[in-house]
Amino acid sequence: MIIVIQCKDRVGLVGSIATILAQHQLNIVSMREHVDKAEDLFFVRLEVEDGDTNGLEDTLKEVLPSGAIILVDPIPHKKIVVLVTREYHCLADILIRNYFKTLGATVQGVIGNHATLQDICERFDMPFYHISHEQLSKQELEQQITDVIYQYNPDYIVLAKFMRILSPDFVAKFPMRIINIHHSFLPAFIGANPYKQAFERGVKLIGATAHFVSNQLDEGPIIAQQIIPVSHSFTAATMVKAGQEIETAVLANALKMVFEDRVFVYKNKTVVFS
Amino acid sequence: MIIVIQCKDRVGLVGSIATILAQHQLNIVSMREHVDKAEDLFFVRLEVEDGDTNGLEDTLKEVLPSGAIILVDPIPHKKIVVLVTREYHCLADILIRNYFKTLGATVQGVIGNHATLQDICERFDMPFYHISHEQLSKQELEQQITDVIYQYNPDYIVLAKFMRILSPDFVAKFPMRIINIHHSFLPAFIGANPYKQAFERGVKLIGATAHFVSNQLDEGPIIAQQIIPVSHSFTAATMVKAGQEIETAVLANALKMVFEDRVFVYKNKTVVFS
Amino acid sequence: MIIVIQCKDRVGLVGSIATILAQHQLNIVSMREHVDKAEDLFFVRLEVEDGDTNGLEDTLKEVLPSGAIILVDPIPHKKIVVLVTREYHCLADILIRNYFKTLGATVQGVIGNHATLQDICERFDMPFYHISHEQLSKQELEQQITDVIYQYNPDYIVLAKFMRILSPDFVAKFPMRIINIHHSFLPAFIGANPYKQAFERGVKLIGATAHFVSNQLDEGPIIAQQIIPVSHSFTAATMVKAGQEIETAVLANALKMVFEDRVFVYKNKTVVFS
Amino acid sequence: MIIVIQCKDRVGLVGSIATILAQHQLNIVSMREHVDKAEDLFFVRLEVEDGDTNGLEDTLKEVLPSGAIILVDPIPHKKIVVLVTREYHCLADILIRNYFKTLGATVQGVIGNHATLQDICERFDMPFYHISHEQLSKQELEQQITDVIYQYNPDYIVLAKFMRILSPDFVAKFPMRIINIHHSFLPAFIGANPYKQAFERGVKLIGATAHFVSNQLDEGPIIAQQIIPVSHSFTAATMVKAGQEIETAVLANALKMVFEDRVFVYKNKTVVFS
Repeated sequence: MIIVIQCKDRVGLVGSIATILAQHQLNIVSMREHVDKAEDLFFVRLEVEDGDTNGLEDTLKEVLPSGAIILVDPIPHKKIVVLVTREYHCLADILIRNYFKTLGATVQGVIGNHATLQDICERFDMPFYHISHEQLSKQELEQQITDVIYQYNPDYIVLAKFMRILSPDFVAKFPMRIINIHHSFLPAFIGANPYKQAFERGVKLIGATAHFVSNQLDEGPIIAQQIIPVSHSFTAATMVKAGQEIETAVLANALKMVFEDRVFVYKNKTVVFS
Repeated sequence: MIIVIQCKDRVGLVGSIATILAQHQLNIVSMREHVDKAEDLFFVRLEVEDGDTNGLEDTLKEVLPSGAIILVDPIPHKKIVVLVTREYHCLADILIRNYFKTLGATVQGVIGNHATLQDICERFDMPFYHISHEQLSKQELEQQITDVIYQYNPDYIVLAKFMRILSPDFVAKFPMRIINIHHSFLPAFIGANPYKQAFERGVKLIGATAHFVSNQLDEGPIIAQQIIPVSHSFTAATMVKAGQEIETAVLANALKMVFEDRVFVYKNKTVVFS
Repeated sequence: MIIVIQCKDRVGLVGSIATILAQHQLNIVSMREHVDKAEDLFFVRLEVEDGDTNGLEDTLKEVLPSGAIILVDPIPHKKIVVLVTREYHCLADILIRNYFKTLGATVQGVIGNHATLQDICERFDMPFYHISHEQLSKQELEQQITDVIYQYNPDYIVLAKFMRILSPDFVAKFPMRIINIHHSFLPAFIGANPYKQAFERGVKLIGATAHFVSNQLDEGPIIAQQIIPVSHSFTAATMVKAGQEIETAVLANALKMVFEDRVFVYKNKTVVFS
Repeated sequence: MIIVIQCKDRVGLVGSIATILAQHQLNIVSMREHVDKAEDLFFVRLEVEDGDTNGLEDTLKEVLPSGAIILVDPIPHKKIVVLVTREYHCLADILIRNYFKTLGATVQGVIGNHATLQDICERFDMPFYHISHEQLSKQELEQQITDVIYQYNPDYIVLAKFMRILSPDFVAKFPMRIINIHHSFLPAFIGANPYKQAFERGVKLIGATAHFVSNQLDEGPIIAQQIIPVSHSFTAATMVKAGQEIETAVLANALKMVFEDRVFVYKNKTVVFS
């Protein structure tokens, strides 16, 4: 069973929490804790077992600083909706893990602004919604996407290479619940066509970044990043291919962290108890 | 201030410890905890501040399971003696960090069974003891080495590419206080000439392993490991060179972990709160 | 167009080859060359364009040392048959790449000694042959597998977590055409249950190795290897999960190298022009 | 013996070159070749042995496109001058390799705008020039630095954490002969205090970039890059320390590549035959 707490820091916090857990006969199997001293913030993630959690959240609320975020026994299998455009690699990886029940979440549906990935979804009996951006205003497109999302009430929305920029209005509806895979090592190469930028700059590494989406383009809290080496023998096209491998891996890792309640968000940052 | 505890696990341990710390007005800045459920063992490393630690160790002893290992405020700068043969890379890295006071320990002397590295030691005003293994029995060699070591009473003995195998008798004098850098990714290529073995096997990665020395050759608890890719274009000789880079890095990392009291040993394993 | 040559080394070899290519108006776009001086062997992989390759192989044969292996314009899309047991990760990755035509080969069929992965194959309209090892002798099992393989005449047989050991007789039928993914960083942890071995040894890295299968268990020429860091917080079970990610990546990389004719085999080694 | 050629591409180039080498009885031990098709440029690096190179450069010039850069048997041990400020890590690594003759170059002198690193230089009998930037105009500072450099006529000038920005006039005196280590994964975090920027952005990786210095700040051709993972537990200060390790490694690698004549520069890019 997982318990997650984020609150103002103060002396004795761990003792207070641990004492309450002991009163509930809960044994701490694993505990990860972090204090951001500059921000005076306390984060803890506990795996406990035995005991019972009846009334635990209320008891904790009494002893913790006001404003504490307390999550007792969060649902282990989140629900997600995935948005895609035409590239398959991240979606396919998610569908496979979903099918074999190793994703740590349940994919409820996929929305594509192209129909390219409809067939792969159907092979997995996965509802696919083709909402073309053509002949729709941005507002209309986002309204139709929102309608589908609301129908499923997902915990998270995953942008698995969804290549349209979402409006602040859309993002505001799902604060820190939209996860994007960006095809570069942010903050390098913000914006479109990062592999072309990387190729022209002659970099020796390319990367990918999974992050929560905030209102600023490519500027939300980073969850995971990774890179792979490239050389002069790469073209912009082979950089894209190599990048797709790393994008898939980084997004998979970020989703695992989020779905296991290992990620805390504050300011424009994350704490990740990996 | 660091507090380190290793003991049998039981419900309420974190609460008991944290409550005592709070009674001493000690604020937990950082806490890393691990439970090995199979072995029923509990490990914790705390960074605390403010408060005072007078009598803390005794108070902790009262509430912790018997046999608990408790370390309150361990000396931040360990003392070490380094043993070498002819290869310079690990020793030079240690001497440089020692000179610039970034090693997290103080090198008190260097013992070499060859004189090759005497000059570099002298350039850093570092005592160097040349104890040749020639014309000495293993027992005599180890006696002379022991005499030098005892003179300094170091916390750790670092084998920085010391190429003689130490006897169980010698090792028994310094249990879990001898750190070795082994030139392969253990347990592959145990024993002599691992790069030659690696070359002939045609591996695509080579590695290095830093470990505590136990009585079995290359068999003590592993502290750190890392690898680098190699290819068909490597010869056994260029593998050695590449390996030296990774050996230097792995040993430096392992020493940092040990010197910062981040490493716990049990059975033939380590817990490393990196 | 690809040209691949492996032969005894001698002075002037590159000149002879390049001159012949120029006579055929073939422009060298990319060239990778290696000489193993100890073995006196020469390897070259050329990407050429324009010109024509009519009669090229014969002309090359005339000027190259006898016994030269010459491959002019090998078929770009190899045919493969995949053998599996119960673990899905490598097979799923291969099926996805096959479906999206990015594998660089065509999967013709999948053989499983369990039926576990039949459904995922059928979702991709991929022939699946369930040949249970129960109630069959090893010889009978391998005969039935061979019958299916012969029916497709594949270029390579990929053991994508096929957990039965193949007999020397079987292996001899497909020399250097069987590719296996081994769940450890060979030559560490040869044999069964390497993650359990790794867990008990307390390693800080786990790895995977893709190799051609020779008669010796886990002893064929290595094509690719990679590792990921692990820590004390891993159990044998989570090591398996982490290992599966790296197994998938390593096998994908090895297959890409083989399918693009970038891998040469000699003695128990490979040259890989990655 | 090394032969390095950079010129316009055309059909038959490899054949022409290889034929001439064969006429000189030069055996090609290793050959790395690259064609940038967009730029129509050809690069080759050859390791040859036996034979003789008398007149080779002239013969090559006759058959190669005009404007070809031809380097026959470049001096194996380059001469360098190192510029530093106060951080020791890169300089110490260079001094150690220089002392043990594994740098592949000879350090002739060190110039520091602070005196901090004078003592470590003197321990290695290395001339140290303290040229304080205080009370000097930028022009005067650079003039004094230039005077020292000219005195040694080095092949390369290495900025080993030299924290003053050099003027275009200075840079123009040593085109593609100044190598800098930049404390970030360019092009992210251009300019001052990249670790502070990285910390505030909450990145999960930090990197370092070795590059030739051109007139644009942090914009010259990249030679090598590498990264290390960081987490929320890093402060800006511990990021700096971690960064120093990777800076040292990246600069060492870049220098090795340059000193072994493995690096070609064109446009704002490099070809590195690593």
